[in-house]
Amino acid sequence: MTTPAVLSQKTIETIEWTSEGVVMIDQTRLPREEVFVTCRNYVEVADAIRTMIIRGAPAIGVAAAMGVAIGALQSENLEADMPAICETLAKTRPTAVNLFWAIERMKQVYASIRTQSLSQVRERLVAEALDIRAEDIAINEAIGRNGVDLIPDGKTVLTHCNAGALATAGFGTALGVIRAAVQAGKQIDVFADETRPFLQGARLTAWELQRDGIKTTLITDNMAGHFLKSGRIGCVVVGADRIAANGDVANKVGTYGVAVLAKENNIPFYVAAPISTLVLTLSSGDQIPIEERAAKEVTHVGGVHVAPEGIEVANPAFDVTPNRYVSAIITERGVARSPYNESLRALAAKS
Amino acid sequence: MTTPAVLSQKTIETIEWTSEGVVMIDQTRLPREEVFVTCRNYVEVADAIRTMIIRGAPAIGVAAAMGVAIGALQSENLEADMPAICETLAKTRPTAVNLFWAIERMKQVYASIRTQSLSQVRERLVAEALDIRAEDIAINEAIGRNGVDLIPDGKTVLTHCNAGALATAGFGTALGVIRAAVQAGKQIDVFADETRPFLQGARLTAWELQRDGIKTTLITDNMAGHFLKSGRIGCVVVGADRIAANGDVANKVGTYGVAVLAKENNIPFYVAAPISTLVLTLSSGDQIPIEERAAKEVTHVGGVHVAPEGIEVANPAFDVTPNRYVSAIITERGVARSPYNESLRALAAKS
Repeated sequence: MTTPAVLSQKTIETIEWTSEGVVMIDQTRLPREEVFVTCRNYVEVADAIRTMIIRGAPAIGVAAAMGVAIGALQSENLEADMPAICETLAKTRPTAVNLFWAIERMKQVYASIRTQSLSQVRERLVAEALDIRAEDIAINEAIGRNGVDLIPDGKTVLTHCNAGALATAGFGTALGVIRAAVQAGKQIDVFADETRPFLQGARLTAWELQRDGIKTTLITDNMAGHFLKSGRIGCVVVGADRIAANGDVANKVGTYGVAVLAKENNIPFYVAAPISTLVLTLSSGDQIPIEERAAKEVTHVGGVHVAPEGIEVANPAFDVTPNRYVSAIITERGVARSPYNESLRALAAKS
Repeated sequence: MTTPAVLSQKTIETIEWTSEGVVMIDQTRLPREEVFVTCRNYVEVADAIRTMIIRGAPAIGVAAAMGVAIGALQSENLEADMPAICETLAKTRPTAVNLFWAIERMKQVYASIRTQSLSQVRERLVAEALDIRAEDIAINEAIGRNGVDLIPDGKTVLTHCNAGALATAGFGTALGVIRAAVQAGKQIDVFADETRPFLQGARLTAWELQRDGIKTTLITDNMAGHFLKSGRIGCVVVGADRIAANGDVANKVGTYGVAVLAKENNIPFYVAAPISTLVLTLSSGDQIPIEERAAKEVTHVGGVHVAPEGIEVANPAFDVTPNRYVSAIITERGVARSPYNESLRALAAKS
């Protein structure tokens, strides 16, 4: 991976397909440095996903699709190489289903055209990856439109982690709903949980909302309860990494706590996510694998050691919010409400 | 304040009265450096409380008493100086009542002996401060004894912030209960919330339990819900900065969230605190002032800037946990349970 020049313009692309390779803004270095990395082969794309240079369920779906495409471009024997390319990309992160969804979509396209010439196959796979990216932005805009009526005017929206432009190909899911509400003229501001250990809220959500001129207040995760109790918060909106058929939601660790605190204080808790996040074959969230990440993410902040040497650490990257805490799930095809087994299945069947 | 040599022995004193001045271990530099500061006058003691070189409700009570004593030692006209000494110390931190309780106790002793010679008054005030310190350790040991039966054997205890030896003159309140349970032979381990923004859990609780050989796992605050739901946690024990007559508890921000999540998962939530933390004149927690601290505590970790420049920050240092989430309050005089208006009043009346 190479690191080209620092960016200056306002609109920042999370991920782009260029003649040099797959270009991503390095989310591990935001907000202090706006630096882009170019992944020149599928292994570099996999590394970027694993090390969270790019993160966020929809964004890593797009990255994985582009990874397959760049792998295809560089393979002389795709029939032999395709399994390794897909497996390498699939092994990067276990929880967000969009990753597997995008790889599966690329595999199916490949299966349908494998008898064509290598150049035709390559062209088609690149086009498919670009389609996934373009569709993701359109999907997020639709999620925003579908969610805008749910956001109470004149109140604060609390969000956890980053389900923004940086977590997607653009616009964002949870932050897409917030952007759509602001565009619709609603007078809202945002409370952003800093989201330890990776600080996606402090580093990414605060940064992208600040760039958009949306008033944002940063809090530590453990302050969410205090403000949910205070009467100031009108609703919570978060993204999702995987949604089970019954509406249980896997999302960044801490989401469950926010959901319980929202319910306890009679504040609506909304999940904004594309239909590709939904896995109808999982009957409940108990079946969702939870990624355990390195202890160092907890013991070190920005390279500074903040805990005693040798202390044991737990670092689950996600948690599961049972459906009873979820007021609604906002998708590009409409808003699902309890009972989710029915409403989500109906949206999934909708074309 | 001066910074003498680094410590090597196992037993660390949080605060001591010496011929050089009031010596405290610098809690802002733990766990990476075990450094002691010597406060040579009452203004330095006040600075140490304000900057959190010493923190924890009972510990700052002891520090304030020693601050009054050192102020008295250095005053040639105590009748004139006493109000300024007490006011300077009282203005350091607004939420923990132990600070005001200790100053008030020193004031009352002074009022009872003000007609005596200056040297007699000084001697008596120093003795009172030393009494407060010694009593605090004895109180914590009694809290430990009273709490030990509440700790389920063979399970994990979750704690938030540091209510340990470092938050008191020694042994600790919440961690005193844990120590007593371990001493009683219970097979328990501890999950310590890191406790942003000041990281008392990561820096202080993990450090002092590790020194004691009590198995401790560090988690970020937002993981508490996940583990409370997992079935692994047998109970929660925390300290308190102020307790209202109805049993509402002000404690480190995030305590409320942990309490709600504990109740939601049918896990007992215990508060361990000395009777001096109780304020019977406050009918509910709504009347407790909540200290708002500097934005930099949130935007910077260990000197590293983790948020965009200019972002707005909220930083309430405490929150209030309504009594309905509190399973019991463990004091040196016994265990109070709901209805707290009766049980706390009864303990307060007990001698």
